[in-house]
Amino acid sequence: MSYKAVKGTRDFYPEQMEARRKVFDLLRENAIKYGFKEVESPAFESIKLLTAKSGDEIKSQIFVMEKRSNEEIGLRFDITVPLTRMFIEKQKEIPKPVKWFYISRMWRYEAPQKGRLREFYQFGVELFGSNKVQADAEVIALAIDNLVSLGLTEKDFTMMISNRDLIQGFLENIGVKKVGETLRVLDKRGKITEEEFEKELDFLPKDKIKKINKFLKCESVAEAAKQANDKGKEGAKELKQMLSILKSMGKEKYIKFSPEIARGLAYYTGTVFECFDKKGKFRAILGGGRYDKMVEQFGGQPCPATGFAMGDVVLELFLRDKKLWKDSSEGVDYYVAPVNADYIEKAIEIAQLLREKNSVDIDLMERKLGKQFSYADSIKAKKVVIIGDETKKGNVKIKDMASGKEEEVKISKLK
Amino acid sequence: MSYKAVKGTRDFYPEQMEARRKVFDLLRENAIKYGFKEVESPAFESIKLLTAKSGDEIKSQIFVMEKRSNEEIGLRFDITVPLTRMFIEKQKEIPKPVKWFYISRMWRYEAPQKGRLREFYQFGVELFGSNKVQADAEVIALAIDNLVSLGLTEKDFTMMISNRDLIQGFLENIGVKKVGETLRVLDKRGKITEEEFEKELDFLPKDKIKKINKFLKCESVAEAAKQANDKGKEGAKELKQMLSILKSMGKEKYIKFSPEIARGLAYYTGTVFECFDKKGKFRAILGGGRYDKMVEQFGGQPCPATGFAMGDVVLELFLRDKKLWKDSSEGVDYYVAPVNADYIEKAIEIAQLLREKNSVDIDLMERKLGKQFSYADSIKAKKVVIIGDETKKGNVKIKDMASGKEEEVKISKLK
Repeated sequence: MSYKAVKGTRDFYPEQMEARRKVFDLLRENAIKYGFKEVESPAFESIKLLTAKSGDEIKSQIFVMEKRSNEEIGLRFDITVPLTRMFIEKQKEIPKPVKWFYISRMWRYEAPQKGRLREFYQFGVELFGSNKVQADAEVIALAIDNLVSLGLTEKDFTMMISNRDLIQGFLENIGVKKVGETLRVLDKRGKITEEEFEKELDFLPKDKIKKINKFLKCESVAEAAKQANDKGKEGAKELKQMLSILKSMGKEKYIKFSPEIARGLAYYTGTVFECFDKKGKFRAILGGGRYDKMVEQFGGQPCPATGFAMGDVVLELFLRDKKLWKDSSEGVDYYVAPVNADYIEKAIEIAQLLREKNSVDIDLMERKLGKQFSYADSIKAKKVVIIGDETKKGNVKIKDMASGKEEEVKISKLK
Repeated sequence: MSYKAVKGTRDFYPEQMEARRKVFDLLRENAIKYGFKEVESPAFESIKLLTAKSGDEIKSQIFVMEKRSNEEIGLRFDITVPLTRMFIEKQKEIPKPVKWFYISRMWRYEAPQKGRLREFYQFGVELFGSNKVQADAEVIALAIDNLVSLGLTEKDFTMMISNRDLIQGFLENIGVKKVGETLRVLDKRGKITEEEFEKELDFLPKDKIKKINKFLKCESVAEAAKQANDKGKEGAKELKQMLSILKSMGKEKYIKFSPEIARGLAYYTGTVFECFDKKGKFRAILGGGRYDKMVEQFGGQPCPATGFAMGDVVLELFLRDKKLWKDSSEGVDYYVAPVNADYIEKAIEIAQLLREKNSVDIDLMERKLGKQFSYADSIKAKKVVIIGDETKKGNVKIKDMASGKEEEVKISKLK
């Protein structure tokens, strides 16, 4: 009888866990530098909350619990909605802006594929209460700093930035009626060929598709703004201000105006962005934007918001590709080896002494010294403390595993 | 329309999150000192795995997913079984003993009550590969160190220790047939009255119940051993050895031989222990023991194992009761305040400079200085950097929020 993990999930052994923890610690440190505070929400929420604003496509992606006593519950597939719920519960009392970050697990019911698993971690931030472009710039700068702190450079990734109002203002200007549907197709642009793209837009007349293709080729905000109505021009103005702030933050080299970034989800307003590897080998590394209507839609007082999220699956693939992610496990500082069973209790005492300041392993198998050394080696112990006759003089022998050197040390001097 | 969290779950706002993180960081540090390595398993497993050894009572406590395409999946309610699965997958290649710890979320479908939630965190360790009492002593010592590092003393808690072989050897000796059922009732002894206890044991003749009550009152291992058969005497011998090791580890003052500790779950063998607050106000703070048969039962090669687990719900209640757990959120090092809109970009530049080494918040609302100070105060900023006309001389004003003192500082000296 053999049992397997559920497909699309991962087991984290120490090597994988430590590598991931190093990355998460760095992301946490960066978020704290930007004045964000860590939060966490429950793994599951009511189906009512989870599906309120995302439509049917999302529902099929939720791990739904068997219904018991009228409770309809599902695992969160995203944390923006749960955190919006949490924000609304304290909206009156909490000073604005509210800057939250999280490193949390999410679950999506889908067929596992490259860069997509059914269980994954997400790092992200939500910033509630500011409608200023400074707030958008703040979250984009943090997103960039995260990637740079992991060893990536402007040669590796591009932060592609656009503005929903600009895009919608353009679509309205050329008379597109099905704006939502068109945005969803626009969002796929990077993943499909021009032919497929035009086919997916077949609900539009040819001339409009032509105009869309022209718009998507705009290299400057000014050029794009010319093709939009007043709402779009307003979006363009905001975008320019934000790009200017990002420049004063020293982030210009990482960013690019990219009119094709529309973001599929219905809830985005204003600034939208996605980050891709320059070689185009992977899915988006992170994505985010402004969602000024969501708080209100979920029953709160009207309140602007912006944020981003970065999953660990694509991030790990990308960092591994760049040799910036390596499974590894730190060795213990000391392994304490009694020479025989007579010295077990003495060895335990010394291990406890050393544990005040060090990571210490000890023989738990009553093995011979040779086998103990093999084990110490396998767990990458830095030093082995040998507990034998020397203890009668108040001493132990310590072997440095890297140099192979051995010295006799007073027990009273150990720390 | 208002949305609520699912009952029995908790939202962690920054104050709760930071308090919890401090505790978890301490537990992690302790585990590392003992040479344990962190691991994590998926949140869900196949129902087949989850229910394999625990029987029907457990199944009703699992959050089961709606079945899709023949996959029967449920949220883990415990991590010992999933980690046993992970161990078995690497059993051949991995050097023994294997020492793993985790700080993970678990879920149990039950009615929330004091000390029990439907979603909770558990810290714990599993030690695979050693059948020696040193291994049991190691995990018990770590459990004690955890509580001590959180500020608790021998006046606050007792680690109650027994041995399954000793108890079973006693039950067999007095001719009890339904050993498993009796153990499950024994395990409840601390939570029910003597009357209720005897009622639950009504499948046994009165004289056996009397003998059980006498056994439960034993104050020494030797006294208990006299009432047991050879298997029980063997268990008693092991227990004595382990208590002696714990003594040499300096843990004697925290521990007590307690024949009533049986542990309900079927999988325990040998050493068993539970830790309680001395005032008896709460449920068990932690529990653990040896489970030498589990690896084999789940399809691995025979392999002894021992471990313990501590949930965060009772721990938090207990620490709060002792004033050792306090919600708190660290303030930022700096808040950067532009005096008006002309200084926004300069303020952003300086915030970015300070962020290299500090946690820094900045005005994202274009508010007047007075409101900015109120906000800086609400987020407990240690210093406010005022960005105004002084920047023309290359200076900023910095106000220390604790002392109220203000000084002018060269921008080039900021770090």
